[in-house]
Amino acid sequence: MTQFKPRDPDFERRVRDSFARQRVMSMLGASLTRVEPGVVEITLPFRGDLTQQHGYLHAGILGTIADSAGGYAGFTLMPPGSTVLSVEYRVHLLTPARGETFVARGQVVRSGRTLTVCELSVEAVAGGQRSTCSIGTQTLICLPEGEARPAG
Amino acid sequence: MTQFKPRDPDFERRVRDSFARQRVMSMLGASLTRVEPGVVEITLPFRGDLTQQHGYLHAGILGTIADSAGGYAGFTLMPPGSTVLSVEYRVHLLTPARGETFVARGQVVRSGRTLTVCELSVEAVAGGQRSTCSIGTQTLICLPEGEARPAG
Amino acid sequence: MTQFKPRDPDFERRVRDSFARQRVMSMLGASLTRVEPGVVEITLPFRGDLTQQHGYLHAGILGTIADSAGGYAGFTLMPPGSTVLSVEYRVHLLTPARGETFVARGQVVRSGRTLTVCELSVEAVAGGQRSTCSIGTQTLICLPEGEARPAG
Amino acid sequence: MTQFKPRDPDFERRVRDSFARQRVMSMLGASLTRVEPGVVEITLPFRGDLTQQHGYLHAGILGTIADSAGGYAGFTLMPPGSTVLSVEYRVHLLTPARGETFVARGQVVRSGRTLTVCELSVEAVAGGQRSTCSIGTQTLICLPEGEARPAG
Repeated sequence: MTQFKPRDPDFERRVRDSFARQRVMSMLGASLTRVEPGVVEITLPFRGDLTQQHGYLHAGILGTIADSAGGYAGFTLMPPGSTVLSVEYRVHLLTPARGETFVARGQVVRSGRTLTVCELSVEAVAGGQRSTCSIGTQTLICLPEGEARPAG
Repeated sequence: MTQFKPRDPDFERRVRDSFARQRVMSMLGASLTRVEPGVVEITLPFRGDLTQQHGYLHAGILGTIADSAGGYAGFTLMPPGSTVLSVEYRVHLLTPARGETFVARGQVVRSGRTLTVCELSVEAVAGGQRSTCSIGTQTLICLPEGEARPAG
Repeated sequence: MTQFKPRDPDFERRVRDSFARQRVMSMLGASLTRVEPGVVEITLPFRGDLTQQHGYLHAGILGTIADSAGGYAGFTLMPPGSTVLSVEYRVHLLTPARGETFVARGQVVRSGRTLTVCELSVEAVAGGQRSTCSIGTQTLICLPEGEARPAG
Repeated sequence: MTQFKPRDPDFERRVRDSFARQRVMSMLGASLTRVEPGVVEITLPFRGDLTQQHGYLHAGILGTIADSAGGYAGFTLMPPGSTVLSVEYRVHLLTPARGETFVARGQVVRSGRTLTVCELSVEAVAGGQRSTCSIGTQTLICLPEGEARPAG
């Protein structure tokens, strides 16, 4: 994977500040566990009230942490004074989301002036073993701060 | 859209029972507001602890109710003794998810023996006005009950 | 579906000129059969040299005409002096692509300053009967003319 | 990436035979350039009659070789007497498809009894340099031979 150079040396603080404002993340119990240029990981411990009908983590919750991980991976490479929004994302559910902890990873594949494309994955950690339970891809848009809508 | 005929006359009870077991739905405050052959709607009132960094509903939460709406739309047409799982889903975020209430709708487009394809949408309701804030599509798999993993 | 108002009264000529420059379209034998604000259709007669291993139209060829139909549907609503490029597209293959003729349709769902989202479908026509063999969605970007790369 | 073990020792011949029956591949000038358990590559030389309006390879043609590369990557791992069909695929267009040659690669991520998930990519080769111009993902279904329709 290409090595990315952040345009904002203060990218990590900017990502952590924004993540702290995503109230859904603290509600779910998710935390930022890796912030590097072009790569972000979000870790979510299993919780019974986040499950679907068979007791596994709901696919939408996997998608939620994957979408944020990708969004912040893209945000690490955006210039100061910008805002990031998801344009679209998609996830495949490879196996039932069984585990004690889930680690969503966003990895930038293309970082453009306006659009960013990320690969997404979620690993389930169970008994010390990691296995990929979801993969996906995502398109992000970079907007000037204050403009919080997708491309006017 | 084609008129679908359910293979299980008791489909509504089956859908409502399964939805009641999706603990994440009650945690989010979502409820089943329409259950018809091939169409299901899930309604979610806005809540501040479900938001992203600008105070709008997080894209992942939109995806969560859209994924469940599609899953249950597919489930209305599956035979008794079967189980439904998402294979993959994708959502476009058309506008910021601003509103008092969000209505996710799953509509079956193709109902096969093994695979089902749904169209997904989410409408935001604000001041009595409805606008579509998200669309998407989804693939589901029908499994014999007890077998809760995507296609072995 | 919302009624769209073109920003360029001369949109039809602009679409037809661009389509005529898509050399792959004439190579495949595809033609523009509907050009309206926000909606474009492309018709492709079946040909044995466009098939996959079972003698049906290859999924990629369905995707090709669907992608162009969506791209030009978006282009009908873009201002004069702009260029359209696909950011991403996805298609579901609902049934084998059997038929004498295939009609791909792109329908704009959201038309923004920078990004456009379309719904895609392909109908197979066989013995006078139409059936939907593919659906999908697509993201487009509008660029100033001359700038033929996705978002710098 | 996991090492995959083919269930059919004769997988390569089976893939090459099926590819030879995809008439669209020879029409486009595409050839199979790598066939290994879980990985297939298809190479397509640039040709002026495969282009979009700016003279680059049409996104749909990229999608066509990516879809076949993924389909055959999945097919390497399927049992004798089976048939593969695409359920859905999606591609991101990262940069304009400029180059002398294009190499599409399908890589299996999950190989199940019924469903297979692949990662797709296309590299453009220009002046000896390779760059990724497209990525995507795909869902495949494995059917008993003779049954050429997605999941009945």
